Amino acid sequence: MTEPTHDSSTNTSIFDDRESEVRSYSRNWPVVFDTAKGATLRTVDGDEYLDFFGGAGALNYGHNDEDMKNALLEYISRDGVTHSLDKYTVAKRAFLETFSEKVLEPRGLDYKVMFPGPTGTNAVESALKLARKVTGREAIINFTNSFHGMTLGSLSVTGNSMKRAGAGIPLVHATPMPYDNYFGGVTEDFQWMERVLVDSGSGMNRPAAVIVECVQGEGGINAARAEWLQALDELCKRHEILLIIDDVQMGCGRTGEFFSFEFAGIKPDIVTLSKSIGGYGLPLAVTLFNRELDEWTPGEHNGTFRGNNMAFVTAELALRKYWSDDALQNRTLENGRILRERFSPLVYKYEGKLELRGRGMAFGIAFLESPELAGQVMARCFDKKMLVETAGPSDEVVKFLAPLTLTDEERDRGIEICYEAVDHVLAQQYA
Amino acid sequence: MTEPTHDSSTNTSIFDDRESEVRSYSRNWPVVFDTAKGATLRTVDGDEYLDFFGGAGALNYGHNDEDMKNALLEYISRDGVTHSLDKYTVAKRAFLETFSEKVLEPRGLDYKVMFPGPTGTNAVESALKLARKVTGREAIINFTNSFHGMTLGSLSVTGNSMKRAGAGIPLVHATPMPYDNYFGGVTEDFQWMERVLVDSGSGMNRPAAVIVECVQGEGGINAARAEWLQALDELCKRHEILLIIDDVQMGCGRTGEFFSFEFAGIKPDIVTLSKSIGGYGLPLAVTLFNRELDEWTPGEHNGTFRGNNMAFVTAELALRKYWSDDALQNRTLENGRILRERFSPLVYKYEGKLELRGRGMAFGIAFLESPELAGQVMARCFDKKMLVETAGPSDEVVKFLAPLTLTDEERDRGIEICYEAVDHVLAQQYA
Amino acid sequence: MTEPTHDSSTNTSIFDDRESEVRSYSRNWPVVFDTAKGATLRTVDGDEYLDFFGGAGALNYGHNDEDMKNALLEYISRDGVTHSLDKYTVAKRAFLETFSEKVLEPRGLDYKVMFPGPTGTNAVESALKLARKVTGREAIINFTNSFHGMTLGSLSVTGNSMKRAGAGIPLVHATPMPYDNYFGGVTEDFQWMERVLVDSGSGMNRPAAVIVECVQGEGGINAARAEWLQALDELCKRHEILLIIDDVQMGCGRTGEFFSFEFAGIKPDIVTLSKSIGGYGLPLAVTLFNRELDEWTPGEHNGTFRGNNMAFVTAELALRKYWSDDALQNRTLENGRILRERFSPLVYKYEGKLELRGRGMAFGIAFLESPELAGQVMARCFDKKMLVETAGPSDEVVKFLAPLTLTDEERDRGIEICYEAVDHVLAQQYA
Amino acid sequence: MTEPTHDSSTNTSIFDDRESEVRSYSRNWPVVFDTAKGATLRTVDGDEYLDFFGGAGALNYGHNDEDMKNALLEYISRDGVTHSLDKYTVAKRAFLETFSEKVLEPRGLDYKVMFPGPTGTNAVESALKLARKVTGREAIINFTNSFHGMTLGSLSVTGNSMKRAGAGIPLVHATPMPYDNYFGGVTEDFQWMERVLVDSGSGMNRPAAVIVECVQGEGGINAARAEWLQALDELCKRHEILLIIDDVQMGCGRTGEFFSFEFAGIKPDIVTLSKSIGGYGLPLAVTLFNRELDEWTPGEHNGTFRGNNMAFVTAELALRKYWSDDALQNRTLENGRILRERFSPLVYKYEGKLELRGRGMAFGIAFLESPELAGQVMARCFDKKMLVETAGPSDEVVKFLAPLTLTDEERDRGIEICYEAVDHVLAQQYA
Repeated sequence: MTEPTHDSSTNTSIFDDRESEVRSYSRNWPVVFDTAKGATLRTVDGDEYLDFFGGAGALNYGHNDEDMKNALLEYISRDGVTHSLDKYTVAKRAFLETFSEKVLEPRGLDYKVMFPGPTGTNAVESALKLARKVTGREAIINFTNSFHGMTLGSLSVTGNSMKRAGAGIPLVHATPMPYDNYFGGVTEDFQWMERVLVDSGSGMNRPAAVIVECVQGEGGINAARAEWLQALDELCKRHEILLIIDDVQMGCGRTGEFFSFEFAGIKPDIVTLSKSIGGYGLPLAVTLFNRELDEWTPGEHNGTFRGNNMAFVTAELALRKYWSDDALQNRTLENGRILRERFSPLVYKYEGKLELRGRGMAFGIAFLESPELAGQVMARCFDKKMLVETAGPSDEVVKFLAPLTLTDEERDRGIEICYEAVDHVLAQQYA
Repeated sequence: MTEPTHDSSTNTSIFDDRESEVRSYSRNWPVVFDTAKGATLRTVDGDEYLDFFGGAGALNYGHNDEDMKNALLEYISRDGVTHSLDKYTVAKRAFLETFSEKVLEPRGLDYKVMFPGPTGTNAVESALKLARKVTGREAIINFTNSFHGMTLGSLSVTGNSMKRAGAGIPLVHATPMPYDNYFGGVTEDFQWMERVLVDSGSGMNRPAAVIVECVQGEGGINAARAEWLQALDELCKRHEILLIIDDVQMGCGRTGEFFSFEFAGIKPDIVTLSKSIGGYGLPLAVTLFNRELDEWTPGEHNGTFRGNNMAFVTAELALRKYWSDDALQNRTLENGRILRERFSPLVYKYEGKLELRGRGMAFGIAFLESPELAGQVMARCFDKKMLVETAGPSDEVVKFLAPLTLTDEERDRGIEICYEAVDHVLAQQYA
Repeated sequence: MTEPTHDSSTNTSIFDDRESEVRSYSRNWPVVFDTAKGATLRTVDGDEYLDFFGGAGALNYGHNDEDMKNALLEYISRDGVTHSLDKYTVAKRAFLETFSEKVLEPRGLDYKVMFPGPTGTNAVESALKLARKVTGREAIINFTNSFHGMTLGSLSVTGNSMKRAGAGIPLVHATPMPYDNYFGGVTEDFQWMERVLVDSGSGMNRPAAVIVECVQGEGGINAARAEWLQALDELCKRHEILLIIDDVQMGCGRTGEFFSFEFAGIKPDIVTLSKSIGGYGLPLAVTLFNRELDEWTPGEHNGTFRGNNMAFVTAELALRKYWSDDALQNRTLENGRILRERFSPLVYKYEGKLELRGRGMAFGIAFLESPELAGQVMARCFDKKMLVETAGPSDEVVKFLAPLTLTDEERDRGIEICYEAVDHVLAQQYA
Repeated sequence: MTEPTHDSSTNTSIFDDRESEVRSYSRNWPVVFDTAKGATLRTVDGDEYLDFFGGAGALNYGHNDEDMKNALLEYISRDGVTHSLDKYTVAKRAFLETFSEKVLEPRGLDYKVMFPGPTGTNAVESALKLARKVTGREAIINFTNSFHGMTLGSLSVTGNSMKRAGAGIPLVHATPMPYDNYFGGVTEDFQWMERVLVDSGSGMNRPAAVIVECVQGEGGINAARAEWLQALDELCKRHEILLIIDDVQMGCGRTGEFFSFEFAGIKPDIVTLSKSIGGYGLPLAVTLFNRELDEWTPGEHNGTFRGNNMAFVTAELALRKYWSDDALQNRTLENGRILRERFSPLVYKYEGKLELRGRGMAFGIAFLESPELAGQVMARCFDKKMLVETAGPSDEVVKFLAPLTLTDEERDRGIEICYEAVDHVLAQQYA
């Protein structure tokens, strides 16, 4: 078979002509990317972009990690099984063993592991199904500004009104509750939620589960406090409601520790992982749950790509490489501190206009008065060859999900570019 | 990074201990697979299995096609972008161009292409959303014994009661209609469906769309006739209902032509593809729809792995390799004929006990009186080192989704093993 | 307190000004009615209308029956309790005793009696609730062209699309099945329904109950055959689905016997009664069900007017007066025969244009080709001082629900007026 | 027709044998009532009970008001039309004219009047339908401890969990918000509600309407403050959400003025009335709404007993008799003040154990620590020949809905009996 002539043109007409209007990132970054390494994306014409977007959380270990790449090349070269559904394979066995040894056992988490299909929304759907099946209840409590996915079950527990409207049917069975700090600390935590659960006349259907992100990424890098999560956990236990932590975006070390809930010392009933769990940006998802919840009938939930062996290979290697010691975790926490420190002068300079948010390397710069400035920062960064995304209900937050493995130089360069951009747009706005 | 010692043991204890009870295929095939090529899967201890299961439709071109493998190795080696969401990449551009050139244009199908997330159920969810959004209606007509996926939207249009029960909430908004030949030809086609659509007092909510498979795979290899599909298409047009063909399992040449609906000469409004579209067993899905339906708002539906570039690379190559001429198509139709021919003596021998079903290389052997015999055939084939699956509401059908690329020898060996197994279990049963 | 001067003007401006556009009957009959007796309604200016509309089934014993009137006057005069919710009252006790003695016991029906609120839709809502509670299932099977009421539960099992659209939300949980003769006898009864219940892959949620009218009134006077009802009853028993007969409009002797299902020899699990059960046109409803289904918690369903004592008084008297022997029943059957006989010449004269429908004194004349003729007949009858309604999905049926107590002269006059009207509009149409 | 021998026995066996277990009031008050007048109910054996229960709000003018009785006897005697659906009748015309003149016009309320069927839940269902139809949205905001009725639409906006569970299906489309003072004044009013409406990421479906009672009766006599209702009204206007006041129980003068919302100076978009609107305890309901909302199609909502002429007669007279001047209103406010004054010593005596609630003659005594004491008070009052009900999510409130027309002697006697009962049970409890 003849290889296609590698097309290095900058032509984007096929996208305009064929790809659905639903495409989004390419609208802000209208260049054609070709190769990538670490924190760098390179276009067809050789431009290099510093990637603080990080595949929306799927690239915690950067692009094309050299060790994973080699493992992948070796696996493919020797014709390792690629596609296996839920058959037993060597690659899946290695993943399960390493996941047990490096992740579950050290943390005292005796979870069963389910492969629900290779995307975050598959994991969330399976978590909601299981919670409903086990409890016999239908209602779910979610939180303001949550994001859990785009399929119907996940979308019904997602906050964003534009995305909800896309469902085309009324999304029911979920009741939103205020996320931590939703009222700026004025209202007692869980006052409302606790009360409607206790009050038999509240009109609230008794929930099967609560689903929550420890840091809300799409929602605007809102980080819940440990004590808030602990109180939520305690409240769930008291009312016999299952606690689902959606760690699709914030797991795999984004906040420092492997799971984003570890710092609070809680053990959720169900956990969803995807995005960076595959290590190399390959589709993979797992649903974890307490052993006693494993009431599934064989095949009751399934999916064609639930056994993505290439992803097992890179996932397994990522766990061994990055989670055998606490080096990455420490570096993430340290880099997180540095980010906050470096950007804090802007908070003082533009008092009341700006807020720094997040935990670990989930970092956000929120524009409190003029949401549109975040988009201007994104555009200015792009001009300076840096990719950052916006988030939040009004896209008012500049969101960093940079590779955790970025070098000091990359970190500093990113900070410098973005600092200048933020300073620039604010100076213009408030001149 | 040190490579792990390749573990060639046959130990399966980690699966028993850690993997959720939801696992299914591994229960019937309790061996550990290691490598694969074409129609062959090899276990850790060197046993070779002839694969007529074909990744449930994801491996139309067999395991680890040599050309795709080389393209993949080359792409990975040169650090081609792996993960890109919906950014523009060279790999995605090549896929779109080749898909246009090899698939859409020759068939006069001017569809927009959407990447909804890399699994079939993502494609189905996006199709249902779009149909509801465009029409402003909620109801969907599905068919008896349909299978469309496991997330909440797809599950609500899926027939299987065990899988539906897994939802844990009442699945609503879908009304099943009888699939072709549901009454053995006794009842006029669409008598009931047409009547409830016309009758303003029927109690049927006016549907946004009809979703249908041209051959129902999971439902038991039920093949709709061309005239039935034409009548359905015509009925949809008359009532301004969108026609969605779910070609996730039956597309990419399974029935001969690229799309399973081509033989009927119809042009659906929306088409879903996944499984074999990636070529190499890698997760990928696309949703196709008429240009004028493209009313999506940017980002209204999204998904982290919607841009799986490794799959773009193999998908693009698969289209060039297999769909530049009609060789594969002809071979598929020829092999389909041969399968029917070779098994027909059994139909005569065991009159009324057995039925051959399907179209092209979607082939089924249904046990009409004793559904459990299909499972016995599967087990006996496994003993003879051949993988075949069962399907149908009572798992009464032995289902072949063999690679379309299998050799004559593999084809003949598969037929021989399975023929003997069918003959054996029937002889025992009716002795 | 001064009595208001009795206003005998024909002024209707207050209706135009104040009453909602939702009003309907007054649009076709724009006169102000003042008094009524038997089958006669008299307007403020002394015009007398022959009433074959019969309060849409609420006036089986005619307007203002003299015996009931006297009982009512006596009860009110002696300050009998008017309003009692579900407290014990003398009037309610007498009703229960007489209902047991005259209705339940002679028919061997050992039903519990529930007072669900004084309208048909209250009875239907309570029946659906009970069926769901007892079975633990949500789905309900209803029939094409059914009518069960306007509150959300009842509306969801009602066929009429205009009325369904009024809900403003998708109506779910009900699946319509073809009513008897829906396909003109061409398709085997229950072929579709039985199959989807048996087939575990049909996509049909397993139903809690079937709800059906033995003669569909609003749906166009469609009368189910005894053998169809028997087969339905048998099918329900076989699948452990509860059978609810909605006898709100067709009960209380409309079809001859007290219950419309008696002729088929079946004993439904749940029966709803309203409309004529009050005897005098006063609001009352009862829900009847097998003793073992009585799993209600006290107060789990309630309603302010569930104990309407004036209605108990007239209801009790109606039962004693009309159901102590079979005179009314026989007269109803005889009058029904006469209606059919007298109109049959038109069926021959306008072959294929006209169909006579119904059972007992539920009688309909359907215009098969030109639905609008029914409305013309209604208008012409009104000009001739006779009230008849239209029914059916296209308002294509002239519907008689005349008082069962009408005199021979009234019957003959009504037939004469309507016969002429039908003949006239058909002659004009097909001239 | 022979009258039945008036049965003056105390036998209740027919109730035990025939009436469904759903009956409730008769369990606490197991006597057979025969006649009634004003605030007195008399049993078959001549016992007289002082009625502070008042038909759960349906008897604001007491039992069998003499003037209404005479009007009714006259109407029945002259064979006034009893049953008319929505035909024009003299009785309905008089009601509409008097309702306009005495109620709507003096208050500057230019509402259209709809007759939705004769019970409160019919009115609520029609209000919800209309709000959804007009806005094109599905979601409704209701409040903690609300009560709106037992049919499916009304039940979905009702708070009580026992009654909700009776539905047998998940009740969706409604989201409860905290009623006034739900947090004892600690939390800012509407903080939560306003925020989720403003925040496009809150996950709250945009509502069609808010439905609220100005005083929650079944919910435990919780009275909203004027400023709370004003703020709610203002919030609805700002967000283009319709405001529905459910005045079924608290309208018709219960709180002093005719409508319970008048004191707050607001004009709701939609108002429901039932219970006392009929005047004499006869079933009647009306739905009122702003003229521009009258988008109903003729017959889109209907109901057999929507034209209950006997109720029109008594309703019309009640309006003329009691709402031609402000005597009743003043007396209600004065009696309300007296109730509070007379019971306040108990609040001081049992500090922290007791709370007085309500507005006008909607009066409640809440037991803050020991809910079961309310039931003990009810029982002790019954022993002393007085009827009072309990309310609230734990049945912790003794609820007075005495006739507004009660004499000073009756008022004082009722206070005396109940005061002693409350004092007694508290003294026992805290001895």
